Amino acid sequence: MAKIDLHGVFPPITTPFIDGKVAYDKLASNIEKWSRTGLKGFVVLGSNGEYVYLSEEEKRTVVDTVVQSATEEMLIIAGTGCESTAETIRLTEDCARLGAHAALVVTPHYYAGRMREAALMKYFSELADYSPIPILLYNVPKFTHINMAADFVARLSEHPNIVGLKDSSGNVIQLGEILNGVAKDFNVLVGTAGVLFSGLTIGCVGGISALANVAPEECVKIFDLVKAGDLDAARELQLKMIPVNQAVTAVYGVPGLKAAMDMRGYFGGDPRLPLLPSSEQERSEIKAILKKADLLN
Amino acid sequence: MAKIDLHGVFPPITTPFIDGKVAYDKLASNIEKWSRTGLKGFVVLGSNGEYVYLSEEEKRTVVDTVVQSATEEMLIIAGTGCESTAETIRLTEDCARLGAHAALVVTPHYYAGRMREAALMKYFSELADYSPIPILLYNVPKFTHINMAADFVARLSEHPNIVGLKDSSGNVIQLGEILNGVAKDFNVLVGTAGVLFSGLTIGCVGGISALANVAPEECVKIFDLVKAGDLDAARELQLKMIPVNQAVTAVYGVPGLKAAMDMRGYFGGDPRLPLLPSSEQERSEIKAILKKADLLN
Amino acid sequence: MAKIDLHGVFPPITTPFIDGKVAYDKLASNIEKWSRTGLKGFVVLGSNGEYVYLSEEEKRTVVDTVVQSATEEMLIIAGTGCESTAETIRLTEDCARLGAHAALVVTPHYYAGRMREAALMKYFSELADYSPIPILLYNVPKFTHINMAADFVARLSEHPNIVGLKDSSGNVIQLGEILNGVAKDFNVLVGTAGVLFSGLTIGCVGGISALANVAPEECVKIFDLVKAGDLDAARELQLKMIPVNQAVTAVYGVPGLKAAMDMRGYFGGDPRLPLLPSSEQERSEIKAILKKADLLN
Amino acid sequence: MAKIDLHGVFPPITTPFIDGKVAYDKLASNIEKWSRTGLKGFVVLGSNGEYVYLSEEEKRTVVDTVVQSATEEMLIIAGTGCESTAETIRLTEDCARLGAHAALVVTPHYYAGRMREAALMKYFSELADYSPIPILLYNVPKFTHINMAADFVARLSEHPNIVGLKDSSGNVIQLGEILNGVAKDFNVLVGTAGVLFSGLTIGCVGGISALANVAPEECVKIFDLVKAGDLDAARELQLKMIPVNQAVTAVYGVPGLKAAMDMRGYFGGDPRLPLLPSSEQERSEIKAILKKADLLN
Repeated sequence: MAKIDLHGVFPPITTPFIDGKVAYDKLASNIEKWSRTGLKGFVVLGSNGEYVYLSEEEKRTVVDTVVQSATEEMLIIAGTGCESTAETIRLTEDCARLGAHAALVVTPHYYAGRMREAALMKYFSELADYSPIPILLYNVPKFTHINMAADFVARLSEHPNIVGLKDSSGNVIQLGEILNGVAKDFNVLVGTAGVLFSGLTIGCVGGISALANVAPEECVKIFDLVKAGDLDAARELQLKMIPVNQAVTAVYGVPGLKAAMDMRGYFGGDPRLPLLPSSEQERSEIKAILKKADLLN
Repeated sequence: MAKIDLHGVFPPITTPFIDGKVAYDKLASNIEKWSRTGLKGFVVLGSNGEYVYLSEEEKRTVVDTVVQSATEEMLIIAGTGCESTAETIRLTEDCARLGAHAALVVTPHYYAGRMREAALMKYFSELADYSPIPILLYNVPKFTHINMAADFVARLSEHPNIVGLKDSSGNVIQLGEILNGVAKDFNVLVGTAGVLFSGLTIGCVGGISALANVAPEECVKIFDLVKAGDLDAARELQLKMIPVNQAVTAVYGVPGLKAAMDMRGYFGGDPRLPLLPSSEQERSEIKAILKKADLLN
Repeated sequence: MAKIDLHGVFPPITTPFIDGKVAYDKLASNIEKWSRTGLKGFVVLGSNGEYVYLSEEEKRTVVDTVVQSATEEMLIIAGTGCESTAETIRLTEDCARLGAHAALVVTPHYYAGRMREAALMKYFSELADYSPIPILLYNVPKFTHINMAADFVARLSEHPNIVGLKDSSGNVIQLGEILNGVAKDFNVLVGTAGVLFSGLTIGCVGGISALANVAPEECVKIFDLVKAGDLDAARELQLKMIPVNQAVTAVYGVPGLKAAMDMRGYFGGDPRLPLLPSSEQERSEIKAILKKADLLN
Repeated sequence: MAKIDLHGVFPPITTPFIDGKVAYDKLASNIEKWSRTGLKGFVVLGSNGEYVYLSEEEKRTVVDTVVQSATEEMLIIAGTGCESTAETIRLTEDCARLGAHAALVVTPHYYAGRMREAALMKYFSELADYSPIPILLYNVPKFTHINMAADFVARLSEHPNIVGLKDSSGNVIQLGEILNGVAKDFNVLVGTAGVLFSGLTIGCVGGISALANVAPEECVKIFDLVKAGDLDAARELQLKMIPVNQAVTAVYGVPGLKAAMDMRGYFGGDPRLPLLPSSEQERSEIKAILKKADLLN
């Protein structure tokens, strides 16, 4: 099985809602706009996609919509991690059938204290055995309160159908340790744009970052500048993007990301309840941050 | 609306599985055995019930089974908290229709950083507005990484259909602060048997504790001794139960709780994957702990 | 060696400063006032005594002043924990020579990650070997970021010159586990007034609490009511004191404790820099809390 | 006042002990060896120098020894942070008199909950007002449990005598935020060799790292390669050094750092109690790690 090539930038796309219902047409038009920005593909049903608020039926229709709307060369990665092993396997099979090229699978985490290496090893191995598409591990301690250490990732990476990792810890030391431990063709992706530049310079093949929903061209440019060896320009753009990235992740969360998308010409809209939409005050702060980064006139 | 009376002890019951499928007959026979031990009722679909691993259909059938199996005077409390507001409301309505007397609703928590008081206030208020049965708040920071502070609980308690709280923080100072802030008829339940005695002596009306799955008579006895004012006997029994409670919660988790149930004549069985069953080594440690507490010959 | 009797309530006394210098006369007059309130003795050089801001010379003079000012039946416990073993031994010997009856020794904590059980076992054992006065362990994770678990305390308690523990974790389950593990004559003291009632009812011999600086009579009364078996009155007083205790510990810290002392007729004064004195706004909030608890007219 | 130039690599040097006493001659010979490796200077009395275990007298003699042993062009930075403001000012003045070129001042941290921005602003401002030598801020949340956020650092950096920061958080996003907020001539130093490469590429002027005690040439080479624009060689060396750096910091701590120094031809020796020396098992693990990184034959 040839390992998938993930060099490039991917946004973990948001799921648009109107009056609490998934707005599939808005999703399709976002995909079309993003497709003209140099992105390598899309991550569907990730944390920024509010996957925990979607029914199984909605998840399948979202993936189907993205597959239908994207051009052929775009890679579609579906977030298929559920709490139970059986449900994750079923959803992964469904997404494969719908045309997703790979699955990004978060660590199950409700019983975080019991999700030790033996349990997670069995979980990911069984999933990778069954899955018709390659598996990417998703390490996001901010949401799961579990961190997969480098040596554990190295062991998981020996499975032929586990082909990469998105690490959203923001911990560049850990990225280095992971890169030291895995095979050359294992795809390590940096999972937050706050260290997109640093992740790429230390050896990641690409990045998956919320920021790419609102500033795809800038994220792609950081990627291209690093590849071209123009470090000074890459660093300068990275530093300029940091406040924007903090705004659409740590500071204002998914509601802020959606508000920023609205300002940037994409359809953001409101999140699903219980997530509250950004307040007027928050929107004006976000606007100021986008302006300062030359992302708004 | 008369507030429900929750004086007494409730086990948050486990969900039995055989070969990964819910064993409804084993559930029914457990209910029958527990019903002869002095318990006040049952909490279904709680953390110990592995609710995150159950489909909506399974959840409904589990509640139905418990309602059908329990004697009439037993109170049935269903865990109906989901991540999205809409899904929680729908499941609460379903459980009410099936005969549950109240709903225990965990804080949504995937986006813990955004679940601030405004979001949670709207979430619980809307739910309580819609729900045909009384709502109990469920504060369990160990699993959710969110703590509802006492003054926030006090404000929520003003809603006529929010009638109580299960606090599983283990923090007795916080129990005191909550009791100081809520109305006299608001039901504060201590959520871990490690402080059952201390929760009751500081003023809680009852307790919901994993330990009551394996040692219901002992939990009920602590309750009765405190009510009777026999502090010395109550304390002695509490101290004796602490190691057992730690074993079936913090140390060995749900798999350990199920192993202990098997040893005590209930059907425990294996948890659902990715939770691993207790190892042989763990089982022999659990057995030793039960023996030392006179819960096994 | 007969183990010391610590049944009763002890304030961890503050150190008065005027213009940044220790005001020994104010310390003496506080001691005299406190001595008429039913307290069992004093803890000198604890966290509330700002011990980390005192030179060795000041520490010795503070202990000397307290010994000279207190009546003969009062027990004087000196906080002698420093980061290095040698310095702790030296200060403990000095305090013994000055007349302290016991030493309360905090876990060294700057290198918290290395202060594992082997290191702490050697530290406390060597200290207890050398010390001419009995040693009390001081577990205060809030300040040290180290928690001494119950089984480790049990092992330490086997040393003949380690005679007790102040546990300020606020964790009543842990108090129960500790009580289960230590010998009957080992003195377990609850270290925060937020759970004074709960600590005493679960089996602690006494309490050391910041609150006893400002409300010594009330703390002593909770102790006396529990001993007399009047649980309802004890609980009522405990619940009334919880907001005051939170104010002088978690919410407003040592500066708030000192402000409350000023309001209650003791000399509080300003803390040493970098601790800032309470602002006017904070003082008026503290005053309102004291009034509500009937501690001010 | 011209701001100091800190471009380069500095080891936070260890303090050698023999039989628990400071071995000043060993310190001097270490300084001489390090001085031939391309290092820019030395940080004395840092966390790796076990400063919390040294008396004021010892601290002064250690600084004096380093000043006397180092060649003239080496920059000497003394760690002068104590818990109290007055003590810190006094020690800073002493170190200036002894010839230190700058002071590195850790956040006071025992009362971490009260060390809010107003308290720390007053602390650092008063110190910088009085200090005859420039002040470097030292942010090390691992030991202090306090993190100085980027906007707070930016405000502190406006003081003319606060000329830089060592950030040991390991958080490269935060480094970027800090660099965005401070003036061009404010010296931001990356405080852990795990991200030496990433810190330098994002814009830090230099690095202070424990690893430079045992592998000074390699740290200097990473610095030089980054300056020369040879990213591939720099990254390769950085990745090779990560396991060594983890060993001498997070995994084996100061005792492990000292053991590695012994293996590398410097005098490491034992730490002061209560820190325990590395066990035989740990030493053999450290040796294997050094060998794998080509730091031992």
